[in-house]
Parts: sequence; C-alpha cells; structure tokens
Amino acid sequence: MSKQTVYTLSELSARLQVELRGDPSLQIDGLATLKSATAGKLSFLSNPRYVHQLAGTQASAVIIDPAFSENCSCAQLLTQNPYVTFAKASQLFALERAEGPGIHEKACVHPSAVLADQVSVGPYAVIAADVRIGAGTRIGAGCSIGARSSIGEDCTLFANVSLYHDVHIADRAVLHSSVVIGADGFGFAFDGKQSIKIAQLGGVQIGNDVEIGAGSTIDRGALDDTIIEHGVKIDNHVQIAHNCVVGEHTIICGCSAIAGSTTIGRYCTIGGGVGIVGHLHIADKVMISAMSLVSKSITAAGVYSSGTGLLESKEWKRNIVRFRQLDDMAKRLRELEKLTLGK
Amino acid sequence: MSKQTVYTLSELSARLQVELRGDPSLQIDGLATLKSATAGKLSFLSNPRYVHQLAGTQASAVIIDPAFSENCSCAQLLTQNPYVTFAKASQLFALERAEGPGIHEKACVHPSAVLADQVSVGPYAVIAADVRIGAGTRIGAGCSIGARSSIGEDCTLFANVSLYHDVHIADRAVLHSSVVIGADGFGFAFDGKQSIKIAQLGGVQIGNDVEIGAGSTIDRGALDDTIIEHGVKIDNHVQIAHNCVVGEHTIICGCSAIAGSTTIGRYCTIGGGVGIVGHLHIADKVMISAMSLVSKSITAAGVYSSGTGLLESKEWKRNIVRFRQLDDMAKRLRELEKLTLGK
Amino acid sequence: MSKQTVYTLSELSARLQVELRGDPSLQIDGLATLKSATAGKLSFLSNPRYVHQLAGTQASAVIIDPAFSENCSCAQLLTQNPYVTFAKASQLFALERAEGPGIHEKACVHPSAVLADQVSVGPYAVIAADVRIGAGTRIGAGCSIGARSSIGEDCTLFANVSLYHDVHIADRAVLHSSVVIGADGFGFAFDGKQSIKIAQLGGVQIGNDVEIGAGSTIDRGALDDTIIEHGVKIDNHVQIAHNCVVGEHTIICGCSAIAGSTTIGRYCTIGGGVGIVGHLHIADKVMISAMSLVSKSITAAGVYSSGTGLLESKEWKRNIVRFRQLDDMAKRLRELEKLTLGK
Repeated sequence: MSKQTVYTLSELSARLQVELRGDPSLQIDGLATLKSATAGKLSFLSNPRYVHQLAGTQASAVIIDPAFSENCSCAQLLTQNPYVTFAKASQLFALERAEGPGIHEKACVHPSAVLADQVSVGPYAVIAADVRIGAGTRIGAGCSIGARSSIGEDCTLFANVSLYHDVHIADRAVLHSSVVIGADGFGFAFDGKQSIKIAQLGGVQIGNDVEIGAGSTIDRGALDDTIIEHGVKIDNHVQIAHNCVVGEHTIICGCSAIAGSTTIGRYCTIGGGVGIVGHLHIADKVMISAMSLVSKSITAAGVYSSGTGLLESKEWKRNIVRFRQLDDMAKRLRELEKLTLGK
Repeated sequence: MSKQTVYTLSELSARLQVELRGDPSLQIDGLATLKSATAGKLSFLSNPRYVHQLAGTQASAVIIDPAFSENCSCAQLLTQNPYVTFAKASQLFALERAEGPGIHEKACVHPSAVLADQVSVGPYAVIAADVRIGAGTRIGAGCSIGARSSIGEDCTLFANVSLYHDVHIADRAVLHSSVVIGADGFGFAFDGKQSIKIAQLGGVQIGNDVEIGAGSTIDRGALDDTIIEHGVKIDNHVQIAHNCVVGEHTIICGCSAIAGSTTIGRYCTIGGGVGIVGHLHIADKVMISAMSLVSKSITAAGVYSSGTGLLESKEWKRNIVRFRQLDDMAKRLRELEKLTLGK
Repeated sequence: MSKQTVYTLSELSARLQVELRGDPSLQIDGLATLKSATAGKLSFLSNPRYVHQLAGTQASAVIIDPAFSENCSCAQLLTQNPYVTFAKASQLFALERAEGPGIHEKACVHPSAVLADQVSVGPYAVIAADVRIGAGTRIGAGCSIGARSSIGEDCTLFANVSLYHDVHIADRAVLHSSVVIGADGFGFAFDGKQSIKIAQLGGVQIGNDVEIGAGSTIDRGALDDTIIEHGVKIDNHVQIAHNCVVGEHTIICGCSAIAGSTTIGRYCTIGGGVGIVGHLHIADKVMISAMSLVSKSITAAGVYSSGTGLLESKEWKRNIVRFRQLDDMAKRLRELEKLTLGK
C-alpha cells in the first residue's frame, strides 16, 4: 500500500469512482479546505452552509454534489456524498507511517508465536507465547502482546500499546498509542474488612474495522468476554469495563466511560465525556449528548441529555441554591394553585 | 504460586475453607454464572434475586448460602458470604500471567539496584539506580522504575507502567498497564505574565494490597508525599493529584479525579467519573454517586449526588431554559405567597 | 544544571534576586510549609490567611512580603510575590532526574536523525527517520519519536511518551509519562452503513515552555495542524482533539477534554473535568469551573459554571424529579401570576 503524493484528476476520478468535470490532466498534490486551499489542492463542499466559499477558493478542484456544481468555476469531482468521497480521497494522500514489513532485530518474539507474511514488528515490541498475528499487520515500537492473544490481518498498533493475554482482535483494527486491552475488570467482593479480588477469567473480543483512540482501555471479562463488534470507532481516553458489549458501528467519543456488563446497541453515538452506569441496555441508534450521565436503560432510539447548561458563575450560584429548594417550591406552587384555582 | 485448572470439589472445599455438600470427587474445571454454566463448572448464588436460576443451572456445583441450599439439587459449597468465596475461588482458576522469575536478558537493570529472590523483570524494562524490589515481585515488559524507588513483595506491574523516582510501594500491589506514579503535581505560580513551575519535591507512598487500574495516574507531592493507604482499589483512568491522602480500603471507580491536597477517608466508595476539588476533607464511609462534583468537604458518612438525571433532549432543553430562571421563579413564587396567603 | 542540596541564605538571596534580612551564612537544606518546617528549612507565606502560623514555625527562614515582615522572628527573603519566589526556590532544590547526556547503548536511533549536543536518550527509546532534537533535551526510557518530528532545546520527555510523525515541539517542553502527541484525530464520514476513516493529514505544533501531564493526548490535525501556543500548561488525562488552538499561557486542569476545531484564548483557566464541544471560540481570560460543559462559544472574559452542586442523595432525588417538571412549573407559576396579579 505505497502512497504517491501527486495524482492527476483523472486518476482520482477513477480511484474514487466519481464523475469528473474539468481538465483530467490537472495535477493534485494534496487536500485542503475551501478557505485555505491553494493551487494544486483538492477541496470539498459537504455542508451547504459553506457554498459561498466556492466563489473565492483557490483550489484546483472540488469534490461536490452535482446540485451545487453551478456555483463552482473550477474542476469538479461529482458525488452524492462529498464527505464520504473526501474521506476516501484523504486515505490516498496519507503518508506511509510505519517501516516496511519485517521483525526488527530489537524486537522480542517468543518462538511459539506465529506471524504471517508481511507482518512488521517494531523495536522493543514484545510478542509472548502462542500469539498469532495476521498478514500485513504492523506492531509499533514498545508494544506488548500477551500470551495466546491474536491479531488479524492489516491491523496497525502504534507505539506503546499493551495487550494482555487472551485478547482477540479481528482484521483492519487501528489501535493508537497507550491503548490497553484486557486489563483486569474492576471486581472485588467485600468481606467486611477488605476487598477480595475477583480474578478476571474472561477475555476480550474485538471485531473487524475497529479503531481505538490513544490511551483508551477495554477491560477483560470476569467470566465471559468483553465484546466490541465490527466497525465500532472509539476515541481517546475511553473506558469500557468488563463484560460490556458494544454493538456494530457504534461511535464513542473521547473520555466516555461505560461501566461493567452494560450492552450498547448498534449505530449509537455516545458523545464525549458521557458516563453509562453498569448492567444497562441501550437500544440501537441512541444518541447521548456530551457529558450526560446515563443511569437507566434506554429502550428507544432518540437523543438524550443531562446537565444544566453553562451560566456565568454569579448567575449559576443563585440558581443552584434554588435547585436545592426545587421540591419545596413545587409543593408550595401546588398549595397556591389549590387556593387560587380551587383545584 | 502455580495454578492448576482442575480441582476436585473436596480440594476446593479445603482450600476455600467452606463446608461441602455432595460428591467430594466431582471434577471442577472452571467458574461460570448459573445461567451459562455447563457440566464441570462451579457457579455461585450471591444475589437472592437469581434464586430461580438454581433450578435450571447445568453447573456441577454451586457456592451458596445454607439458607438457599434447599433450592439447589446439585453439589454445594456452603458459606455465609458466597460472593467472597466466589472471589477466592476465582483466584484458584486464574491463569499464570507472567514468565517465571528471572531478569530477562533484554532488561536494563542498574548495578546499584537491589532485587530480592524470585523477582521477575520482563524484556525492555528499565530499573534505575538504587531501586529496591521485594521477593516475588514481577515487573512487566517495558516498565520504567525511577531512581531510589522501592516496590515490596509479591507485586505485579503489567507492561508499560512508569514509576518516577522516589516512589514507594508496599506489598502485593497490582499496577496495570500505562499506570504512571510520581509524575509532577500540577503546580505553578503566576508572575503576571507566565506560569513559573513549582518543582515537585515530594514523593508517593502506596500501602499494601493496593490495585491501580490501567492508565491511572498518581502525582508526586509538592513538598510532602502523596499517600495511598492499605487496601485501596483504584479503577482505570483515575487521576489523584499531588498531596492527596486516600484512606484505607477506599474504592475509586473509573475516570474519577481528585484534585490536590484533598484527604479522603477510609471505606469510601467514589463512583465513576466523580470530580473532587482540592483541599477538601471527605469523611469515612462516604459514597459519591457517578459523575458527581464534590466542591465542599463532606463531614458525615452517607450517600451524595449531583447532576440532573437524563432526559430526552427535547424535554431537557425546555427544562434547562427554566433552570436559568430558577432564582427568578423562586422570588415570584414568594411574592404570590405573600399576596395569597398573607404571609 | 547540576543541583546542590544545601545553600546559604546569601546564596539563595542572590540566586532568587530578593532582599535578605537575617544571618547570610544560615544553611538551608530544603523547603517546607510553615507548619511542617524544621530547622534548616526555608518556608514561605503566600496566603495572608496563614500569617498566624509565622509565630510557631520552626523554619530557619521564610520567603515573605515585606508587609508581613514584622510578624516573623526568623530570617527572611523579602519579595512582593512570595509564591513566585517560592516556585523559583523549589527549582533550586529539585533533584536531577535523568542520566547525564549521551545516547544509551540500548536506544534505537535512526541514522538520519539529527541530535544536537548534550542530548540524552534513555534505554529502549526509539528515534525514527529524519527526527531533529535540540541541545540539552532528554528523552526518557521507552519513548517513541515518529518520523520527521522535531523537539527543541532543553525539553524533558519522561518514560514511555509516544510522539507520532510530523509533530513539532519548541523549547523547554516537559512531557510526562504516557503522553501521546499526534495520534489521529477522530474523524469519520458515515456512508449509510459504516464509518469511513478520514486520514488525518495535519500535524501538531507545540510552543515554548509547554508542560503536558501524564497520560494526556493531543491529536494531529485533519488537514491543518493542531496548535498549542507558548506557555500553555496541561495537567494529566487531558484530551485535545484535532485542529484545536490553545492560546498562550492558558492552563488546563486534569481530565478536561476539548473537542475538534475549538479555539481557546490566551490566559484562560480551564478547571478539571471540563468538556468543551467542537468548533467553538473561547475568549481570552475565561475561567471555567470544574466539570462544566461548554456547549456555546464564550465571547467575554469571566467565570462560567454548570452543574447542580452536590446534595445528599435522598434530597437530590426529590429535586431531580422536580427538574423534569421545571418547564411545567414555570408555566403554572405564570398562570397564577395572571390570576392573582392581573398581569
């Protein structure tokens, strides 16, 4: 998957499978927003709110919905979904980020590990006993892969990822630096004096096309496995506790935390900084807004929120005093209604 | 501490020091919930809510309170506290997770470090000058232990843990991957133009039987030490700032943060995503519910919460508008009361 | 920058450029608070609230505002800003925390990397192709520095920091363990079935005198760079998403998260656990209190908050029920006013 940095517009049209309008021999050497683009750059119009920026752009070509084609005087790549086409184009311009295949002489690979062809293992990475790694997968510097774990094909683990033992990852996963998969779930039994550790005997299963952001953690299950299904995208600093199940194609934004044994449906969007308590069920296609606390199961698709909104602190202080009096206020209001309205 | 994977029921009864009812020669090869257990598995009934699952379970034996013994037709291990006995049983079935003792040839141990017998140091771990490590402690791959730090006996540090200099950990600690202990507390003096760093001259002291989850951080003190007392259990992504003191056997759930110089009592339970501001005192046996903000000291045991609860976003938006008017509403209500009630 | 551990008071007076009152030959061997100081220690009075502690302190000398000099019977270092002088003094007593300069034989430095004089590279650190590192910079054990990245002079990277490719850091930065700079921003285009990754083609630029706490993450930009300006101080577990700009000398406390493309002004203070949603502009000198959610741009300096404050859970439950009825209560109150007040 070597990358070139210059394409003709006709090459791009062919690779992205979209219609070309304009000079097919135009040289494109990068991507840019409409506003910051210079000659040689390919830009895109996704949000119609920015249609006015078409007039002034210096881009050599624009990815655009045919409906807005008239507004654009430069070359165009026509598509019903410009943002998706832009995403695909971005991958064409991405730089190669890892060394070529091969096991670095300063890596430490257990003789019982089975590595497929075209695997790359960086310096100071450690591959423990009975690990299996699929073709084309790249293990960054300083990663540690625990015993009996498996990683599928074409995965990328950036530097300093830690996988514990018995963690199973399918194909095309991307794990960013400082990710930890398979640490012990947080389980203790209190004997009246102290907390007795419950050994976490389950593992972790991660499906195809999962991306996990820097520093995120997914704990191993207590008895059964923790499960992340296909296509799930997880941002940085996310915590997924033991025995959670995250459904296909769900997106979890940064700094969210999901407590133990909670099941999240498919195609959900969990905003940043959200907390979901344990043993809940969240339906498919649920959206949770940023920094909400979910303390009950959600049975229907929809958008859910909590919190008070931001105020100037002076005004906020006056209102939170009243928040404490809210139950009392409600009762007094009811009394007045009885007196005034007679009901 | 080698682990076997099959026990007879009589062996389990002896090791767990609980009474056996049933065939002592039964072979048990693992643990499972009542619902998912198959033949050969040991299960448990902790929450009486699940007593109806006893009838259908395929488990070969169940850890159970004698009061429910009648409801169970399979072999039994009888105990007043089934959850604690289950926790102890889980430890018997845990797989060995580290290499045997010995310093890996690819570790880097300073000649002045003193390592007791039966210490294991993984590949690419770095042990700096004047470090002391107690018997039976296992240091994972890629860990870094700073100068003059000490770790007691039978501790486990998983891969890629970072301990700075002058950090002291007692016996039987478990530190998960990406834990950082002893980074600088966040202290600056503002000179009117810029922030001048306050060098953090204290250290960190951690007691016996402390577990610290993946990615959690405990900062070193500014002048005195940051202190984590015996038996404290800390989940993933927790931040404990400089000069905090966390009392014995307190539990801190994932993604919580405790700001500088706050003292937390013994046997507290801090829920997930909680924030506690600096320079507070929290009494013993305080429970804080998930995602609460603690901005004042808490002087009495009890359960404390903050937040608004989750609503559908449409409904939530209507109500947060009113939250901003709450002080005004309270005053208007008082006016009406004066008029209507004459008081 | 070797450190000694004992200074005479006259040496300290000269180095800190403050006036001395008392015996210039006094030996000072450390810093301590007024309360815990013993003979030989230098203390400080910053907050006038603690002026009564002057009488009983055992400190040999105190850093103090001349206005309080009368209250103090021991030797003094006189300054208009005792806290800033204390910060500078603390740096004089800090222990050396890294090995001397030199590339450890167990580091892995690409032949094309350019390292200035007096650079130190710890064991198992990896320096990729075309990296540049300035004089006096220290790279800790197990760090990974990606291709084409640059680090200026006199920076300190503690153990296990991960820098991706094309990350640029200026002079005197301090990066604590498990920091990750330059991981992919969280960007996907949804094609109706799955999320298509938007390759993150930008980089990260970090100015002079920036400190970044343990485990914090700063993502690379999508097309343009993510930018952290001079003098910014970032605590532990902070997440800064792609294409954010953080203005000079802003302080971001632990566990805060800033979503994509948000611009934060200069001299702001972002409290702990704050969330700021994407595409906002925050003015200069804004203070956000702990655990607030910022969901709109802030155009004026000031203090801002959200949340409900902490209550005992019993009381809290009564009030959050009413929070859900707040819009209804407001309407009923209005009705009563019309009836009672005729307006």
